[in-house]
Parts: sequence; C-alpha cells; structure tokens
Amino acid sequence: MITHVCFDADDTLWEEGKFFIAAEFVLADVLAKYAPNEDIADILLGVERANVPTLGYGVKSYTLSLIEAALKISDYQISAEEIARVMDAGRAILRHPMEMPEGLVDVLTSLRKSYKLVVITKGDLVDQNHKLDRSNLREYFDEIHVVIEKDAPKYTEIFDGFDVAPEQCLMIGNSMKSDVVPAIDAGGWGVYLPHTVTWQLESADEPVDAPKYRRLKHISELPALLAELNKTPV
Amino acid sequence: MITHVCFDADDTLWEEGKFFIAAEFVLADVLAKYAPNEDIADILLGVERANVPTLGYGVKSYTLSLIEAALKISDYQISAEEIARVMDAGRAILRHPMEMPEGLVDVLTSLRKSYKLVVITKGDLVDQNHKLDRSNLREYFDEIHVVIEKDAPKYTEIFDGFDVAPEQCLMIGNSMKSDVVPAIDAGGWGVYLPHTVTWQLESADEPVDAPKYRRLKHISELPALLAELNKTPV
Repeated sequence: MITHVCFDADDTLWEEGKFFIAAEFVLADVLAKYAPNEDIADILLGVERANVPTLGYGVKSYTLSLIEAALKISDYQISAEEIARVMDAGRAILRHPMEMPEGLVDVLTSLRKSYKLVVITKGDLVDQNHKLDRSNLREYFDEIHVVIEKDAPKYTEIFDGFDVAPEQCLMIGNSMKSDVVPAIDAGGWGVYLPHTVTWQLESADEPVDAPKYRRLKHISELPALLAELNKTPV
Repeated sequence: MITHVCFDADDTLWEEGKFFIAAEFVLADVLAKYAPNEDIADILLGVERANVPTLGYGVKSYTLSLIEAALKISDYQISAEEIARVMDAGRAILRHPMEMPEGLVDVLTSLRKSYKLVVITKGDLVDQNHKLDRSNLREYFDEIHVVIEKDAPKYTEIFDGFDVAPEQCLMIGNSMKSDVVPAIDAGGWGVYLPHTVTWQLESADEPVDAPKYRRLKHISELPALLAELNKTPV
C-alpha cells in the first residue's frame, strides 16, 4: 500500500531546464568569435561536472560555471561587459516565470486527500524555496527536502523519516539517475516521467527489469497509476 | 531545565569570516588602480546586501557579489585575468583549513552526555556540510539545520521539532541578529559569543534586559553556564 508520494521539482513540478538552455544561448552568442557552438557546450559541461563536488547544483553554481567557461573558452580575452552579460544570463534563471504542467494542481489536490505528498529536490536551498513560493505549490506538500545528492542512502534516510516501509513510498521525476534508480534501490517505487530537456549529468540506464519501476507520459496519469498499484500488492 | 543546546557554525564552531576578508584583500588589490580601499569595501557591502534576497548567504553568493562589485568598481574596465583572480579568491574560501576554538571538542564531548546538540546555520547546504565533514564535528550533533534565515519563526519551528518547550532550548553564536535575538524572541535562551570578525549585516542591539540573554567570552565557558542555568529555573 503506497502512502507517501514524492516528487522531483525541476522539470517535474515546473519547467526549469529550458531556462538554463536560454542562458547557454547567451554564452554561445558572447563566445561566437572565440569558438564553435559545440565546443562551447562541451567545455561548459566539463566545467559543470568538475564543479559539482565543491559547488553542488543550482543556479549560483551554474552561473559560476558559465563565467569560468567564458574565461577559459575566450582564453582570457573576453571583456568585462561580456562577462557581465554571461553572469546576468545565469542570474536571470533565478527569476524565471513558473510554468507548471497542465492539470498539476488537480493531481495534487486529488492525491493529498489519500497520500502524504513530499518534494525531494537537489539545487539551492534559497532558489528551490523561492520557486515553491512563486508557484504557489508549497501548500500541497507535507514535507520539502532540499538535499545535496539524491542517492539511495538519502532516499533510505527520507523514507525512514516517514516511519513507513520503503515499499510504501513512490518517487516520481525526470531523472533516471537521481529520481528513479536510487528510489528503487532504497526499496521504493521509481516512476520515470521523461522531460524534453534533461541535463546530461542526470542520465542512467532504464531499470527495465525492476518490479517497482514504472514510466508515465504525463503527470496527470499518476492518480490512475497509484490506484492500480494499491490494488496489486507486490 | 535546558535540554537542547544549539550552535551557530561559522565563527562559532570554526573560523570563517577571516577567509572572506582574505578574498576581500584580493579584490582590493586587483581594484587598487580603480578605487580607494574604503570605497571598494562599501560598494561590495552594498552589492552583498542587494543580493541576499535572491542569492542567499554563503561562498557562492559571495563570489558572485565579488565579481559584480569588481565589474562595477572598475566601470567594466577590468580584464578577464583580473576577474579570474577575483573569482578564484572567492572560490578558495570553499577549501579553507578548518580551525576550531581551543577546547571545542572537549566541550562537545562533555555536553553530549547530558544534552541534545544541534547545529543551526545559514549559508550554503553543500558548503556547510563539507565543513562539518572536514572538521570531523558532525558526529557530535544530533541534528543539523541549514536554513535560509535564522529568524524567530525559524527558531520556533526548530524548537517545536524538538518536542520540548522553547525555554528548554539554548542557542549560542556570534551574531546578535541571527543567533541571539531571534532565539530569545522564540522563547529560548540566547548566548552571545562575540568573534573578532563579524559581518556588518549580522549586527543588532544587545538585548541587555532580556532575562534569557547571556554573554560568554569563550566557548569553554558554556558547560559551566549550562550547569548554572539548570540550577536556577526562570
């Protein structure tokens, strides 16, 4: 019997990745005279990957990575005004409009009558909280967890905190690596809800043989899936 | 009867502010040809203050503020290499050596036998957790709270989570504004432990008339204060 439904935030509850891509377009535009587009994307991804251990996830880290990439790609030839453009493009992500999938509020309104609803998100504490406020979604959730990494030990810790068995917990999100696979590894259900934009560092193999793995096309299918799973004990 | 002892982290459990000042020296050195030292400090503080609502606290925010201040103070004349020096100086704070006050581990070892010990800190989730690991202090604490703002409602929420009355909770730290005053406002004890380096945005009036206000010179005095307070119900 599933009792706790946990949601990823970025690109599950609201659009996020496309605003990062918009910032990357600015970077590419500023750096066009120094390097071809595909090199810029590769170098940026390398800088991001190298920075995750010390800087973590989120817009501030990304903005620092954009600046670092701009300095490197231009071989320190970039002007202060161009740096300012790149920094502003990164920081603008902090103010992006909130765009939620159609029917999300209906889904949450319906599910909260029968389930505890939880947000489990990486990223920056301040920014993720701002988005919960700007989206007016905070009131639908019983718990909000902003964490450093979404790995199996972290899911175990969060599920333990619910005081229920892990198989009573379901996690839904657009990242195989951070939402689906580790939640299943922790003994819960992992529901993959692919998004058109997903960061390369979030990919992982689809756990096609895991009995507690499911895949949805749209979040509006979630109530029906829960109803079905709660009729069929595993 | 005090049962829960809560500690600020930066400049209470370990040295922190002086590493920010080291970065500010680099900023001043890089910008020496553009502006006098005192103007640089003033403009940086203004930039920091303006950025807190969107960027929050911590090294990543500070580094972005350093870059923004460098661009502004140089009137966008600063070179890419100089920007890199400023950014590196900010990011170096993330790797600073951990320096703890003399006797801290003895204090924590002794107190944990009789009290629940808690860290309540602002700053960045990733960085604060790294410092708890680098300092080897994590094991002494029952709970770690990395929060966006340390105000009275936040202390009320944390104290409520302990399932004890607020007067059973004591908060100790070097910030009047974030550690002492709001903990007292939430019904707990506020213990001021001044540090030589405290950020200007953390100042507030000393609550000299508050019955639950105390002031210490060194953290090694804390066990004696707790013993005294627990003999004298208020």
